[in-house]
Amino acid sequence: MKNTSIFIANLLRKSEFILNPRTAYAHCDVPCGIYETDTMAHAAETVYKMVEKILELKHPEPDDNQKHLEFENTIARMVHTKEEWAQKCKQEILILWTDYFKDEHLAKFPDLHTKVWKATKLCSQVKRNVDLKLAQQLKDAVAEIAKIFAETKK
Amino acid sequence: MKNTSIFIANLLRKSEFILNPRTAYAHCDVPCGIYETDTMAHAAETVYKMVEKILELKHPEPDDNQKHLEFENTIARMVHTKEEWAQKCKQEILILWTDYFKDEHLAKFPDLHTKVWKATKLCSQVKRNVDLKLAQQLKDAVAEIAKIFAETKK
Amino acid sequence: MKNTSIFIANLLRKSEFILNPRTAYAHCDVPCGIYETDTMAHAAETVYKMVEKILELKHPEPDDNQKHLEFENTIARMVHTKEEWAQKCKQEILILWTDYFKDEHLAKFPDLHTKVWKATKLCSQVKRNVDLKLAQQLKDAVAEIAKIFAETKK
Amino acid sequence: MKNTSIFIANLLRKSEFILNPRTAYAHCDVPCGIYETDTMAHAAETVYKMVEKILELKHPEPDDNQKHLEFENTIARMVHTKEEWAQKCKQEILILWTDYFKDEHLAKFPDLHTKVWKATKLCSQVKRNVDLKLAQQLKDAVAEIAKIFAETKK
Amino acid sequence: MKNTSIFIANLLRKSEFILNPRTAYAHCDVPCGIYETDTMAHAAETVYKMVEKILELKHPEPDDNQKHLEFENTIARMVHTKEEWAQKCKQEILILWTDYFKDEHLAKFPDLHTKVWKATKLCSQVKRNVDLKLAQQLKDAVAEIAKIFAETKK
Amino acid sequence: MKNTSIFIANLLRKSEFILNPRTAYAHCDVPCGIYETDTMAHAAETVYKMVEKILELKHPEPDDNQKHLEFENTIARMVHTKEEWAQKCKQEILILWTDYFKDEHLAKFPDLHTKVWKATKLCSQVKRNVDLKLAQQLKDAVAEIAKIFAETKK
Repeated sequence: MKNTSIFIANLLRKSEFILNPRTAYAHCDVPCGIYETDTMAHAAETVYKMVEKILELKHPEPDDNQKHLEFENTIARMVHTKEEWAQKCKQEILILWTDYFKDEHLAKFPDLHTKVWKATKLCSQVKRNVDLKLAQQLKDAVAEIAKIFAETKK
Repeated sequence: MKNTSIFIANLLRKSEFILNPRTAYAHCDVPCGIYETDTMAHAAETVYKMVEKILELKHPEPDDNQKHLEFENTIARMVHTKEEWAQKCKQEILILWTDYFKDEHLAKFPDLHTKVWKATKLCSQVKRNVDLKLAQQLKDAVAEIAKIFAETKK
Repeated sequence: MKNTSIFIANLLRKSEFILNPRTAYAHCDVPCGIYETDTMAHAAETVYKMVEKILELKHPEPDDNQKHLEFENTIARMVHTKEEWAQKCKQEILILWTDYFKDEHLAKFPDLHTKVWKATKLCSQVKRNVDLKLAQQLKDAVAEIAKIFAETKK
Repeated sequence: MKNTSIFIANLLRKSEFILNPRTAYAHCDVPCGIYETDTMAHAAETVYKMVEKILELKHPEPDDNQKHLEFENTIARMVHTKEEWAQKCKQEILILWTDYFKDEHLAKFPDLHTKVWKATKLCSQVKRNVDLKLAQQLKDAVAEIAKIFAETKK
Repeated sequence: MKNTSIFIANLLRKSEFILNPRTAYAHCDVPCGIYETDTMAHAAETVYKMVEKILELKHPEPDDNQKHLEFENTIARMVHTKEEWAQKCKQEILILWTDYFKDEHLAKFPDLHTKVWKATKLCSQVKRNVDLKLAQQLKDAVAEIAKIFAETKK
Repeated sequence: MKNTSIFIANLLRKSEFILNPRTAYAHCDVPCGIYETDTMAHAAETVYKMVEKILELKHPEPDDNQKHLEFENTIARMVHTKEEWAQKCKQEILILWTDYFKDEHLAKFPDLHTKVWKATKLCSQVKRNVDLKLAQQLKDAVAEIAKIFAETKK
């Protein structure tokens, strides 16, 4: 039983990639480089907003069918939107990590790997839950990576 | 509060693109050109049909769990289908507008821009709602663009 | 009425492609070839697991709003995951059929076309339903194609 | 060596799916059904046209660098377009085969499986070659399936 | 003949969508709205840079095979990159047009439709050519739309 | 000038994501988990094979136009295939890293982050070059991660 629930957790985690095979576009700060951290910040912000909005929804009374159908339409679209932006956030973080950051940055910020790793795991968690605290943690994690990025640009 | 609901409306509107990054294939009427209006017409028709079908669904009694799960399976797939075809409709309209229509067409149909604009906005509205009247308006808007297109082919 | 329900069934069937425009990656067994049957087997297995997990869900009591929202988040993601892997399964089967299998294989396995055809139809059925028996049939169908594939490799 | 070239041929064949994970949209002939054969016909037509156009290109003189760059820009885009429409053609054929055709159709057209199979293989061949004869064969194969489809609609 | 070249031009124009079915992500300027114009500006900038870089390439001497293969690898990737960012630019412009701009904005900027229309057509032109002047025109067109956007935010 | 070439290098690196927004499917080894390392191994293998095949190509004589067109068709498709599988390799590595590996694994393999990081950077390098040595290094890097994965399964 526990194995099964680990299995399914893993599966959904993995499905985050399947469900969201979106491109991770990033800006190019021409001429000083093409990496930027606005996109991942906005994505995290959007996830937060989306969680907030889902939590504001009221499940309709059992006997109001039309309301039910509209509720399903709305929440299905919001969950999907949350999923997309969480995935976009993850991809943007990973683009910075795999493409922008170099050995010299790592020398200066030895916990960079760990911070990136934890941030991407938060992207998965906000998908699996409807939880403002997790969404806030993602925003914080992204802000921290952005700060490191800014440091390397000085 | 109003700002928030505008924000979320905007976000979902924007997410229509994120949720639906589909290719907008169009026919090529070889040899007389490769633009056609069947695809957007069928897409609008399909959205209409989909709204109709969602409205036929009955939310299950609270105590029938199996029915609930099947209901969720069905409506999630229908909402997604509606989303996809509404987006496809929007893309097809935009392909005609950005790629097919030329200055000479605009001279003859000065309200073309406005008509296209309103039609794409209807594509967003049918996603956000489960409303037959909106779906009918989309069909009408698409039919009108198709008529203009046909005129330009004479 | 019957026409309408056939229409909608067709539409959802067709939408399986729209909803799931995923790439069907396949392994390459270098150097003895690049086709393999693990992927479709795992996909069918995953669909089965997903149906199992959806069936384990309990629709929340009408008055527990937070639970409802979480339930919707979970089931929407599981349905989408089922959809994705069923589609991936279909694509993998079709890659083998259109790209790997040759006339000589068909001569040896004259019912290959039929078996492939039925297997792809099962991929659609597991999407439209939440039904363990169908999921098991898909697993069996995939296993049979894998067996034929293995025979052709001898 | 022969193995290697078979391997690479297989790989490119397989890559057709990877390179072209496009949705295969199909029309819905509301109310008489949502399957149609225009899309695959146009796709095959387009592949033909694309081959024709590639064959019209003249490789620039070695010393004209600007022409070379433009030539590369043009042919890369044409090859990609050919690839896309050949893949779309394959997907449309497969949608009809896996979703539209039923046992009763097969009873009436016992060689349906074979015809579909060969048509999809032609989709791969037109990708791997720049050959008008193959493109014509694809058009013919598609026309034949469309004819069968029309028969089933009578 | 002229018809053919119009046909092919149309086809490639249309293929821009097929070749580039990318999501058009946009920022959300929380809390003052989620539309922004940085993305389309960066995209146009990137297209410009890409054209510049392609024009810097030197077609290798006929007898240096390895250089030829590397040249092909580089230019194929650059053309694809140009294509992607031009398409992204077009999508971002269209998101603003179909989703952000309202009647009140149009009242204030009566040539908005025309400006958007011309800008999207430039996105197609930079794909079909390797021409710095066109890329500059796209940058200017995008800057103008951004200016209008900024005005509406005042 | 150096800035420009860094810029363009960055851009192409980033474009790897844009050019390759493919899903990273992974197996699920039911019931012992759904992570596996075959996919990334095959992907790396395929990249290697693809480089090998590109290097076997002979640039045609300047005066053989038909050969030139076929050469362009072949190499454009091979470069694209290399790109796709290199990207798939990167995504599979990142799925393992962000989704499978846990703190306990890191405790046991303290250089896991570094190994993953370097492997993803090799995925980018094999795209930008036509170089067997780099392809071999990618294969080795992937094999090492697979070995760590296997250790964690003991």
